[in-house]
Amino acid sequence: MSTQPPKNSANFKLDRLGALSDGVIAIAITILVLGIQVPSPHKIPESKLVDYLYNSIDPMIGFVVSFVLIGTYWLEQFMIFHFLTHTTRMFIALNGVFLLFLSFLPFPTGLQAAYRNDELAMAFYGFANLLCSLSLLWIWLYASKDRQLIQPKIPQETVNRMTKRLIVPPLFSLLAIGCSFISISLSRLVFLAIPIYHFSYYVADPGVHPVSESESSA
Amino acid sequence: MSTQPPKNSANFKLDRLGALSDGVIAIAITILVLGIQVPSPHKIPESKLVDYLYNSIDPMIGFVVSFVLIGTYWLEQFMIFHFLTHTTRMFIALNGVFLLFLSFLPFPTGLQAAYRNDELAMAFYGFANLLCSLSLLWIWLYASKDRQLIQPKIPQETVNRMTKRLIVPPLFSLLAIGCSFISISLSRLVFLAIPIYHFSYYVADPGVHPVSESESSA
Amino acid sequence: MSTQPPKNSANFKLDRLGALSDGVIAIAITILVLGIQVPSPHKIPESKLVDYLYNSIDPMIGFVVSFVLIGTYWLEQFMIFHFLTHTTRMFIALNGVFLLFLSFLPFPTGLQAAYRNDELAMAFYGFANLLCSLSLLWIWLYASKDRQLIQPKIPQETVNRMTKRLIVPPLFSLLAIGCSFISISLSRLVFLAIPIYHFSYYVADPGVHPVSESESSA
Amino acid sequence: MSTQPPKNSANFKLDRLGALSDGVIAIAITILVLGIQVPSPHKIPESKLVDYLYNSIDPMIGFVVSFVLIGTYWLEQFMIFHFLTHTTRMFIALNGVFLLFLSFLPFPTGLQAAYRNDELAMAFYGFANLLCSLSLLWIWLYASKDRQLIQPKIPQETVNRMTKRLIVPPLFSLLAIGCSFISISLSRLVFLAIPIYHFSYYVADPGVHPVSESESSA
Repeated sequence: MSTQPPKNSANFKLDRLGALSDGVIAIAITILVLGIQVPSPHKIPESKLVDYLYNSIDPMIGFVVSFVLIGTYWLEQFMIFHFLTHTTRMFIALNGVFLLFLSFLPFPTGLQAAYRNDELAMAFYGFANLLCSLSLLWIWLYASKDRQLIQPKIPQETVNRMTKRLIVPPLFSLLAIGCSFISISLSRLVFLAIPIYHFSYYVADPGVHPVSESESSA
Repeated sequence: MSTQPPKNSANFKLDRLGALSDGVIAIAITILVLGIQVPSPHKIPESKLVDYLYNSIDPMIGFVVSFVLIGTYWLEQFMIFHFLTHTTRMFIALNGVFLLFLSFLPFPTGLQAAYRNDELAMAFYGFANLLCSLSLLWIWLYASKDRQLIQPKIPQETVNRMTKRLIVPPLFSLLAIGCSFISISLSRLVFLAIPIYHFSYYVADPGVHPVSESESSA
Repeated sequence: MSTQPPKNSANFKLDRLGALSDGVIAIAITILVLGIQVPSPHKIPESKLVDYLYNSIDPMIGFVVSFVLIGTYWLEQFMIFHFLTHTTRMFIALNGVFLLFLSFLPFPTGLQAAYRNDELAMAFYGFANLLCSLSLLWIWLYASKDRQLIQPKIPQETVNRMTKRLIVPPLFSLLAIGCSFISISLSRLVFLAIPIYHFSYYVADPGVHPVSESESSA
Repeated sequence: MSTQPPKNSANFKLDRLGALSDGVIAIAITILVLGIQVPSPHKIPESKLVDYLYNSIDPMIGFVVSFVLIGTYWLEQFMIFHFLTHTTRMFIALNGVFLLFLSFLPFPTGLQAAYRNDELAMAFYGFANLLCSLSLLWIWLYASKDRQLIQPKIPQETVNRMTKRLIVPPLFSLLAIGCSFISISLSRLVFLAIPIYHFSYYVADPGVHPVSESESSA
């Protein structure tokens, strides 16, 4: 049942679901900046600008880290979509779970800026990221189980490599949560390892280097 | 008059109207998180983080419920668009009414978080959701009246099932409004029945399982 | 020079410019709700919910009026794009001016909610709307001058009707500014005449009822 | 390796990356208005509307300047995309750096409105704009190095002119930073020279006046 719907309609659905996901991710990544907060232009600022900027360094670092992480999740979701033939109701629901966690990220990012020396804030931030990367992994495990949604032309080896790749971010998030109780800066560095790992592993990506095993490239 | 405009132009209009609707819905769903609110990173937080997080549980639940409901309205509107041949000025106006109510939802969601033990807040939230689901139903009743905007290939039975399906969310909203005066948690559970019902009824959906009655699938 | 660039590239540019405009308009229309403002979920609310809601009626009316007006400007811009063959640098600049004024609207909308009995707030709101509708008219006068950007198949009569149609909103805005010094409610009613006029004049619209003078419709 | 991936897939990637960039830019440009800030509609305003508006002149000017600058960056990025055959992982990363700096702009814009007579606020604003225009230049230098991502049909002369053109905004930003210590208004005027320069140099743009060297136009 419903395993191979007509091509056009399936692509259309994927496109539309991809476009909606892109919209949500683009908004989440762009409203992060609202978390840094500016003083009202209608009051005499309480602190001198130098102090204000100094005080903003932590929120700004948090902004950059979250921006880079959301950008990485976007690239991973984008790649998953490239492997697929069609969607199912379960896939749409799992994608919704991912978007729910992702659009939640501005909250722990903001908390982490306000409670900057509190390891619990960093751990909560790590937990929210863990949920994002786990839901991405779940989407992929569902889609690649018995290759039910995977395009036939994608070699199994590429599928396996993608699986390995998507297992890494949740592990890093767990590690970062652990590190947050030692040092908040260390925990952040662990998070920044996720995009670095992602980019160094890029070769496996059929959407960007189109099908690395095949004729034309990589 | 204007019953069957040239195909290309009609599809174009539907696409553009769909894209604008997607944009509005994606933004509404993503700015929900702003309602949870974070303390300013430029002041010493007034409460300990544990207390702050404990205090955030209710707004977070409200965020999840509204996210899931808006997601469900999006899927329903998406399906309605899949049934259509073209749009009319009345359809555009009704779709605008739906988007108006939908983009209003962050307000009652925020009120409900601030006045969390006030049944009136829950009832007001329910009323806003009632307006969303009623306007979706209205769009559909207009489009399906004498099948004026429905693609000829869609079987009448599918149209009827879609009608039944869209009648349920307003009824659940009414029920939830009633329940809010008994128990706010019960009222929330009733709301969560809407997406569950929606997903269990998915089979009727020609956009996702393309035309279930026809040759290719389901 | 540059009067008739190759079709594909021209359409592409129009599409991309249209998509960017849609994005800006969708965001502006959706963040209007942030202007109604909710109490922080982390403080005991200062007023009872009934009072809070009563106090929110004015901001809510302002939200609805601005939503409907932005929606109308969107439809008008959408129609203008339908008449065009290509864009020029001047057209892109004028469209930018329109988007600048449009994305400014949440500010006077918010002011009008805060200073609800102040006729100056209503007049300022009217002035911002005047700038939006004047910039739309300017775009159209530029595009239709000697029919430089107009598709050859559009009859001149349709072009003339569109001109008349786009002259009306600035006139209504001027009238509403004048009325705001008599009665703020009257001024609002004058604004609501803009979308009503727009919808009743729909027939002239080649984008929605494709080319009313021609073979297939209307 | 990977120098000439199959056309379709490459265009698709470019389109999707362009669409995501458009989304981020559209949101950043539209949430600028939130920085002007409105008084809560639930409190009696502290100042008279005339004073409030007078006080808003500076934030409004800041809004307009940032709107025009972001619009200009958008046009420049849009043109860069028009020259390309495909993307690489490095290009995606550089584009991400640009979007990071661009989506940060509402923060210095807001600071500049709050600390309006503080030259440091203007210099910080200038620095943020310098990062935006430098990252755009970096994207272009990477893409045009040995013409690795440039479409073969684009004449080398056009590529060179584009390079010159993208060098100007960082220089103007540097100049504006310097001027901010003399006069904040002068510094703003220098910034407004960027879009003026951009528009007067338009002829080099193959995306808008399609390939100026070729048959059909300009």
